[in-house]
Amino acid sequence: MIRRYLHALVVSCGMLLAIPLNQAGATEQSYRDLLDTLRDNGTLDLVQYYDLVDALDETDTSHEETEGGPGLGGRLMVDLAKYNEDEVDLGDGTELRQARLGLEGSFDSAWGYELGVEFADGDADVKDAYISYQGFERARLQIGQFKEPFGLEVLTSSGSITFMERALVSELVPGRHIGVGLATHGKGWSLAGGLFGGAFDDDSDDEGDEAWGLSARVTAAPWRKKRKTLHFGAAVSTRSPDDEREISFDTGPESNLTDVSYLDTDDIDDVDQVDRYGLEAALVLGSWSIQTEYVQAKIERREGMSELEFDGSYVYVSWLMTGESRNYRRQKGSFSGIEPDSDRGAWELALRFSEFDLNDEDVTGGAAEQVTLGLNWYANSSTRFMLNYVRVDNDEDADADGDVSGDDDPEILQFRAQIDF
Amino acid sequence: MIRRYLHALVVSCGMLLAIPLNQAGATEQSYRDLLDTLRDNGTLDLVQYYDLVDALDETDTSHEETEGGPGLGGRLMVDLAKYNEDEVDLGDGTELRQARLGLEGSFDSAWGYELGVEFADGDADVKDAYISYQGFERARLQIGQFKEPFGLEVLTSSGSITFMERALVSELVPGRHIGVGLATHGKGWSLAGGLFGGAFDDDSDDEGDEAWGLSARVTAAPWRKKRKTLHFGAAVSTRSPDDEREISFDTGPESNLTDVSYLDTDDIDDVDQVDRYGLEAALVLGSWSIQTEYVQAKIERREGMSELEFDGSYVYVSWLMTGESRNYRRQKGSFSGIEPDSDRGAWELALRFSEFDLNDEDVTGGAAEQVTLGLNWYANSSTRFMLNYVRVDNDEDADADGDVSGDDDPEILQFRAQIDF
Amino acid sequence: MIRRYLHALVVSCGMLLAIPLNQAGATEQSYRDLLDTLRDNGTLDLVQYYDLVDALDETDTSHEETEGGPGLGGRLMVDLAKYNEDEVDLGDGTELRQARLGLEGSFDSAWGYELGVEFADGDADVKDAYISYQGFERARLQIGQFKEPFGLEVLTSSGSITFMERALVSELVPGRHIGVGLATHGKGWSLAGGLFGGAFDDDSDDEGDEAWGLSARVTAAPWRKKRKTLHFGAAVSTRSPDDEREISFDTGPESNLTDVSYLDTDDIDDVDQVDRYGLEAALVLGSWSIQTEYVQAKIERREGMSELEFDGSYVYVSWLMTGESRNYRRQKGSFSGIEPDSDRGAWELALRFSEFDLNDEDVTGGAAEQVTLGLNWYANSSTRFMLNYVRVDNDEDADADGDVSGDDDPEILQFRAQIDF
Repeated sequence: MIRRYLHALVVSCGMLLAIPLNQAGATEQSYRDLLDTLRDNGTLDLVQYYDLVDALDETDTSHEETEGGPGLGGRLMVDLAKYNEDEVDLGDGTELRQARLGLEGSFDSAWGYELGVEFADGDADVKDAYISYQGFERARLQIGQFKEPFGLEVLTSSGSITFMERALVSELVPGRHIGVGLATHGKGWSLAGGLFGGAFDDDSDDEGDEAWGLSARVTAAPWRKKRKTLHFGAAVSTRSPDDEREISFDTGPESNLTDVSYLDTDDIDDVDQVDRYGLEAALVLGSWSIQTEYVQAKIERREGMSELEFDGSYVYVSWLMTGESRNYRRQKGSFSGIEPDSDRGAWELALRFSEFDLNDEDVTGGAAEQVTLGLNWYANSSTRFMLNYVRVDNDEDADADGDVSGDDDPEILQFRAQIDF
Repeated sequence: MIRRYLHALVVSCGMLLAIPLNQAGATEQSYRDLLDTLRDNGTLDLVQYYDLVDALDETDTSHEETEGGPGLGGRLMVDLAKYNEDEVDLGDGTELRQARLGLEGSFDSAWGYELGVEFADGDADVKDAYISYQGFERARLQIGQFKEPFGLEVLTSSGSITFMERALVSELVPGRHIGVGLATHGKGWSLAGGLFGGAFDDDSDDEGDEAWGLSARVTAAPWRKKRKTLHFGAAVSTRSPDDEREISFDTGPESNLTDVSYLDTDDIDDVDQVDRYGLEAALVLGSWSIQTEYVQAKIERREGMSELEFDGSYVYVSWLMTGESRNYRRQKGSFSGIEPDSDRGAWELALRFSEFDLNDEDVTGGAAEQVTLGLNWYANSSTRFMLNYVRVDNDEDADADGDVSGDDDPEILQFRAQIDF
Repeated sequence: MIRRYLHALVVSCGMLLAIPLNQAGATEQSYRDLLDTLRDNGTLDLVQYYDLVDALDETDTSHEETEGGPGLGGRLMVDLAKYNEDEVDLGDGTELRQARLGLEGSFDSAWGYELGVEFADGDADVKDAYISYQGFERARLQIGQFKEPFGLEVLTSSGSITFMERALVSELVPGRHIGVGLATHGKGWSLAGGLFGGAFDDDSDDEGDEAWGLSARVTAAPWRKKRKTLHFGAAVSTRSPDDEREISFDTGPESNLTDVSYLDTDDIDDVDQVDRYGLEAALVLGSWSIQTEYVQAKIERREGMSELEFDGSYVYVSWLMTGESRNYRRQKGSFSGIEPDSDRGAWELALRFSEFDLNDEDVTGGAAEQVTLGLNWYANSSTRFMLNYVRVDNDEDADADGDVSGDDDPEILQFRAQIDF
């Protein structure tokens, strides 16, 4: 009879084998528990036990390889905005803020890749698109298009930032270019640097040489505690312009639906070099956090013309009312998204003050201050809903390079539904 | 003690089985049979038995979650058209009618998503792009871009419609916009409604406020029989124009390859409101079916200008010569594709009469009648080949807003190869 | 003994768990070994044994069906180019040379599909997009958009060609169009032919009839030896122009980053027909190979105008320094990529001479000769890095249709990082 049982079990194991498995995380833990139990009650001796554990660990590696196969994902953001206009029309309405598809994976422990494409505006804009080499201990080499290492909020995914849009001053941050970068990290610090050319569409009309730049960022997080993080960061970037030697900065209010760019320097000519400096700090204490950044850009022009200096900053406070804590990624020196503790989701209240000044010397690009009050509901770790109320205070020169009147101070109420998959 | 081992092993096998399955249907049944056998012969007592069955049922739930992971798919349509031209050139040739990629999935029983992108025309046009909430009993909430609930043929996927192109009058149906919708259904009825803004590319040049609209659709299917369906539906939509207060309707013949739009109202100005009404009916009797729709649009203009009224309709008969029956989706009140009964595929013969009138008061957009004879071969449930012969009868005003001569009556022969994956 | 059984079962369960959750090849072999062992030691009788083996074989079939589901992949190429300019600016810089996503699969042994989209230039260009029927023995029918059967280097994937860019003369090869094709092959030969319309974006502005063409290619590979291949091929194509009866040829140097097209015939009018002829040969001897092609295009114009004749050719030698051999795909008569023998990757040195002449009769499109020295490192079968040094020798007429000066002889140094996933 025992043999019958055994036969039945072998058959059932055979059947099990037929099952194409996907994600055995929980099951694996149960299996490890089983092995421990069988060792404890003497069914397995220690040699057998460790053989089985080792086999499991090995398959874990192969499991990682499997996970390294093309991982498909995407993100969707749907926005609604209502403008309480002051002077100019801003255009109430709806939009797909993001509609992204992406693939990432790796072939072995060494070579990996990522390719993300954004479709929301009817075009197909390639976002991250790089090959990575992880074969070094604690260092990672990337070649392709990705974000230059500069800025805390810009290096935080748009799916994980606290407010619907990044602060005004992110216009000064270099962002994505094609290049090569190296990143490393220790227990409480990260360091990244890179050499970059222009963006992938930088070269459409003109056959002059592309712009190129160098940037580097260092972060330190002295505490290694759960729900407590202290973060400091500093970044520098220097960039040579392309053969046309022009540069311009422009940005709308912290709302994407309108196309009005109040702040606009127009083309600045005869540029020799652009240097940028960034300082960051953040403190997480349980469900409370505060984050701040300052960015400055210095534009050297040809002999005889004065240097230009633009800068901006923001500071915000966030309170996760349901008790969660913001997640810090020590290896990258940036934050990832909120994971709700309960099935009812997480609620967050946040307040940001942001200022940006594009006026200097002969350039009157305008200056603005904005205050944003945000309320977020994280239905689960992939789905969130955001409500932002923004007060805009533009100065006289914030006239969209003459297209609208200055000193225009609208209010914005905007809503977002977002899902990451 | 042996029994303890066996029990431990059976439990461990149960855990293994819990591994998220892909298509473990058959295996799972075998495993349930095994559990029954082990209970019957006393190896498992009832407590053990129900523990294992419960565990299995729970993993069934997780099975659904796994299935909810990103499901990748797409569709390809390749067209060939030969025009027997009357007056103007229509341009014989070939085209990729559709080349779509899409992702859909859900995270748990509550939150899901869909994102589809169309590449056939060299751009990347986002189609369905929404977040859905299915946590209610029998109701479904959607936010994002999707089709307004209006029209039987428009709500039937382009991969499942009976002819190569939808009837002319589908130009009056609202189609996809960004908004929020709620759908519910009972045993023999469905009800859907929503509030919508403009389409995702509605806001490119102008900063006026977007258009917005409300629509609702109710369907009833009084019979619950296999191979027999009686469907009735009605829909209303009201839409406020955007700040420019313009609207226009235009459509070519029921053939996509040519760019000639015989019917064209040009811009209609000073629009206050557009109301639409739709009526639908369909009857399936075994392999025969008949389907018909009528749509009317009323355009209110500023005080003193007369109201405009455009309308159109179609009626068609389909005969599945190989004996299959059209599949009705009771929950959505629309039809899905044909599944061939045999390996040799299914054959369908269909005839449609379609008419559309864009002439009213001061607007002479033209009117047309078209007759289409269609022959479809469904090689399998994913692959089909279509041959359509279309006779076009345009009136004098069907002059593409003056670009071509009116009363132009071409014939069209067109072929499509289609695959859904 | 019972304990031994139990131990065997626990081990087998451990193995089961080890299944690399997607591709169970190795595990399945272990399981088959286990079944053999249990049969040999009497635990399983022969009936039980074959039941289990049969069950396993059946699940194998379903496994293959699963593999037929959508296979997702992509390719990324990141380029850097430095031009040692002679006369005109070529524009040093970086670019995403390719960023592709694609899906392919099949439903059963008969029907399959492929859809690939290229995003590198900000648009979404559909590449291969076809439905295939493989139900015939040794023959394959395709309908949709794919490469016309013509040319060895053009029919080799851009991810597998030996140099960063194809030779100049590939401008004369028809490339991708929408049509229907049939391919068959024997032990040492392949034959493919097709009827094609225009490319998918051929019809945007004009409603004249599309161009259409016929092409056919035959290849022979008389040897069936490992690491030794002798390949011959010949192709013909005839194409009628569209209603505008214009054709033009233009190409830049063998570098994609610059937009300068030195060779340019401008529009050639009154075209009646374009006939093309291609000859190919390749010899692989271990890690050495030589490959050459000649392509000629004859353009017949209206009565009274002389026929035009353009042609070009290339020959290259490749040496895989680490001992690998180029892989020939007998069924397609083309080459696939290099698979490194060792973990340290494969190194390849290659030299190409290329010439192309677009001068004939009244057309002075220019002529060029180019020599390319290439060094490739294949880190693994999916990842490679390429360095190309190109010397360009343009003639007086190679003036980009008057936009630049002729006799411009730049040198090019370019680098590529590439990953296929």
